[in-house]
Amino acid sequence: MVKFIFGHRNPDTDSVVSSIVYANFLGKKNAKAISLGEINNETKFVLDKFKVKHPEIKNSLPKESEIVLVDHNEKVQSIKEIENLKIEWIIDHHRFDLRIEYPVNIRAEVIGSTCSILFKIFRENNYELSKEEAGLLISGIISDTLFFRSPTSTKEDKEIMNELNKIAKIQDLENYSLEMFNAKSDLGKIHVRKLIKMDYKEYEFLGKKYGIGVIETTNPDYVLGRRKEIMKEIEVLKKEEKLNGILISIIDILNEHNTTIVAEEHEAELLRAVFKGKEIEHNLYSLGKIISRKKEIIPKLEEHFKKQKLL
Amino acid sequence: MVKFIFGHRNPDTDSVVSSIVYANFLGKKNAKAISLGEINNETKFVLDKFKVKHPEIKNSLPKESEIVLVDHNEKVQSIKEIENLKIEWIIDHHRFDLRIEYPVNIRAEVIGSTCSILFKIFRENNYELSKEEAGLLISGIISDTLFFRSPTSTKEDKEIMNELNKIAKIQDLENYSLEMFNAKSDLGKIHVRKLIKMDYKEYEFLGKKYGIGVIETTNPDYVLGRRKEIMKEIEVLKKEEKLNGILISIIDILNEHNTTIVAEEHEAELLRAVFKGKEIEHNLYSLGKIISRKKEIIPKLEEHFKKQKLL
Repeated sequence: MVKFIFGHRNPDTDSVVSSIVYANFLGKKNAKAISLGEINNETKFVLDKFKVKHPEIKNSLPKESEIVLVDHNEKVQSIKEIENLKIEWIIDHHRFDLRIEYPVNIRAEVIGSTCSILFKIFRENNYELSKEEAGLLISGIISDTLFFRSPTSTKEDKEIMNELNKIAKIQDLENYSLEMFNAKSDLGKIHVRKLIKMDYKEYEFLGKKYGIGVIETTNPDYVLGRRKEIMKEIEVLKKEEKLNGILISIIDILNEHNTTIVAEEHEAELLRAVFKGKEIEHNLYSLGKIISRKKEIIPKLEEHFKKQKLL
Repeated sequence: MVKFIFGHRNPDTDSVVSSIVYANFLGKKNAKAISLGEINNETKFVLDKFKVKHPEIKNSLPKESEIVLVDHNEKVQSIKEIENLKIEWIIDHHRFDLRIEYPVNIRAEVIGSTCSILFKIFRENNYELSKEEAGLLISGIISDTLFFRSPTSTKEDKEIMNELNKIAKIQDLENYSLEMFNAKSDLGKIHVRKLIKMDYKEYEFLGKKYGIGVIETTNPDYVLGRRKEIMKEIEVLKKEEKLNGILISIIDILNEHNTTIVAEEHEAELLRAVFKGKEIEHNLYSLGKIISRKKEIIPKLEEHFKKQKLL
């Protein structure tokens, strides 16, 4: 049976390239990489640079299909009706929220990128990476660590990137990272819904559902210019998807700065309670150097709701 | 900071020897193996054979302690107040029921024994096992797979055992396994509560709590002889620990047969609904060749309660 390999909804570069390279490792007869949604401009740039076919987009799979989850483990971030599928492997570097009624293979590490974990698995299995595969893995590491600006990145991610570049032979890695980030920031006439959902995940706290998005960009002014439009769309989206709140953070990659859009009063109260920072101005709240959703935003929210539970 | 390494409550051989050998691997300065409860006769036999000190028994740890969970991941099976501790690593081969609000290192595989996973980690890290360590790991594999009688055991477990025995040099592995099982079965005047809790875990299904125990033995008649006493104690235990039911299965290791004690009407109804086998006779229910709690008993119960939920 062919296993389907995929990353989270609203896929980012780390999850897409992980799926592709891990599927290669398992072999064409055994595995197929798919994507749960349209890939973003950064990922397109990366795949096109290495002349790799874009993965097929699928939102559902036949019952009993065998699946491998990369770069995620929470069911709310995964494929629809996952309860009817058979999870064979999980390879991830996020917090865990998992209940599976059968034993499963898991490789999870506290590291900057799923691609770094894959590199270790390949090394253990003496899998020889092609130039393209090494390039894809490097791109995943660069993307998820924001070229080592993110507090989630580790020394090991950097060592692995350098090890991989002995095969990929990308001449100037910093320059390549800028090309990637500029591709990501080149949003043109992107529809506002797509802009919000570009790098967006749902989380549950105390039974309340939130949408938490980040827009990592080298051109924050572009996104800031569309903030009124984004606020209106957040109001619509909250109703449509029955969410308690939506937080969209604009991450200025090069200056490592977070400006979060405050759509309505619920979000304003939450931000004031959780981050205790400056005042809200022009519906924007500065979260300063807090640029990692995983290591900074979500843990702060968790802590806040944990306290709430004790009240 | 010293990490504490431990297996589940009511520890078995696999969880105790895993803790000890993994702590050795991390180094004395960095790690200490503890046990959440008294070790059983089989484990005592194994530790004494290899002249290894019994681990200290601890039920709680100072707040913020760093911990490594081996052979389990469910909080109900772990140390008290785990919410106040920091989970660094999980190495396990069971179903998953895990919510941790921070990223964590996990190595989980669908394999017969936690010791088999450790062997792979050691090999990847070029860790040279001593004769004693190899012997302990072999014992964990033999115990958890019932010397490859259990349906949870894999070809890989066997290969790993043989690889380990190049170091441990145990002359007759089958005979050694019989010595282990006889030690486990030598229960003498064991208190009935201890007998029940020897290999016993709590599970939650649809908000209902159950205690599920197995007594693996080469001398089933001894346990069957004490069944009235066990039934009475189950009644007491259910009230004390606010459980909906308790199932205790007597596993005849050598004949691969399960006889389950039916304490009260609730258990009788549950067994009839889930297993649809023979009639209950003398408060005993034959589950035939169903000898693995993990691969057979728990999945059947899960399936049953899943259907109940849909009703």
